[in-house]
Amino acid sequence: MATHVDVKHSRRIMGRLGHDKDLLEELTAVAAGEGVTLGRVEAIGAVKRARLGYYNQEEREYEFHEVDQPMEIISLLGNVSLKDGKPMVHAHVTLADREGRAFGGHLAPGTVVFACEFVMQALEGAELKRAHDDPTGLPLWEM
Amino acid sequence: MATHVDVKHSRRIMGRLGHDKDLLEELTAVAAGEGVTLGRVEAIGAVKRARLGYYNQEEREYEFHEVDQPMEIISLLGNVSLKDGKPMVHAHVTLADREGRAFGGHLAPGTVVFACEFVMQALEGAELKRAHDDPTGLPLWEM
Amino acid sequence: MATHVDVKHSRRIMGRLGHDKDLLEELTAVAAGEGVTLGRVEAIGAVKRARLGYYNQEEREYEFHEVDQPMEIISLLGNVSLKDGKPMVHAHVTLADREGRAFGGHLAPGTVVFACEFVMQALEGAELKRAHDDPTGLPLWEM
Repeated sequence: MATHVDVKHSRRIMGRLGHDKDLLEELTAVAAGEGVTLGRVEAIGAVKRARLGYYNQEEREYEFHEVDQPMEIISLLGNVSLKDGKPMVHAHVTLADREGRAFGGHLAPGTVVFACEFVMQALEGAELKRAHDDPTGLPLWEM
Repeated sequence: MATHVDVKHSRRIMGRLGHDKDLLEELTAVAAGEGVTLGRVEAIGAVKRARLGYYNQEEREYEFHEVDQPMEIISLLGNVSLKDGKPMVHAHVTLADREGRAFGGHLAPGTVVFACEFVMQALEGAELKRAHDDPTGLPLWEM
Repeated sequence: MATHVDVKHSRRIMGRLGHDKDLLEELTAVAAGEGVTLGRVEAIGAVKRARLGYYNQEEREYEFHEVDQPMEIISLLGNVSLKDGKPMVHAHVTLADREGRAFGGHLAPGTVVFACEFVMQALEGAELKRAHDDPTGLPLWEM
């Protein structure tokens, strides 16, 4: 069964991330700097290189792979919630290489911004906290 | 020409889908259970396996293919509207395999949730109903 | 550093694009016709063929490639802002072919709609204008 809560709009931030910065760290810095503890985020842009996670469902651990080439960010979708009392951005990205081929995964530190335009929406009305989830081994929302 | 209507925010639901459940059925159950007849939905997560549709534009029918491996949901984007008087979730997904390669298509029943975090936004102010569209053969909004 | 502004919801438009029309031109026409000078847009659907851009970060110019086959639009994410005083839609798309393989890039004119369902949200509270950005060579928001 799906478990869910009602959340309300709080505020919306639109902008661009710093050239040469770490994509995940920048998004996390925006959330932390603006006091966003719950929210959603979307972005498009380009990266100089990427580091993507794939969760091995059987081994119950993330595997990371680096893609060391410039690529378009054709989609970034994610959310903001609390982990260990701090805002955590959980985002998945889709990238396209020079031939247009698409790659993607769980956005990991090590992905470097070339240019990135984002919209982050702060939400309120619930506190979603991540904690260990037994069936998956992932830090999911306690609901 | 684009045809469109103004819609207003009604409410927003954020949560996670049940482990081992059917992704499309779960999203549809959320919409039906919460009385969402118009809306939009987005999600990220992972699936155990997937069943994706590709609309053959010449034959005017969906072809389905199964991808029988664990993959990340790197994007799910969709909408909610009425078909035959019931809420219908129309969603497209992008998935990434262990090597980061991306796949995708029209989300079909048979896609099994490993973990999935979603935001569904209920909208109001218009009633969008799907009916047969002659130029495409698809059930599109009558507008 | 990320630079950003607070923006507020103005209105939301939901609809479908014309069969056989140019995807980018149609979205731009919706924005211009409805007086949207700042906003975000998302869509799913299918195209008859596509023309995608990849920004060559070293040469600082777009390279375009055409994909001459019917494909699903598995994600379209973009924004609306001002360039040379007119609304400009900047969108990135992810497409899937008959085998489910994903492609994508910067949406360029020459991408033809088969069917497309979109949500465009008009925003206000800031005026984002594109101007030449030295580090990237791209027309980015002056902030």
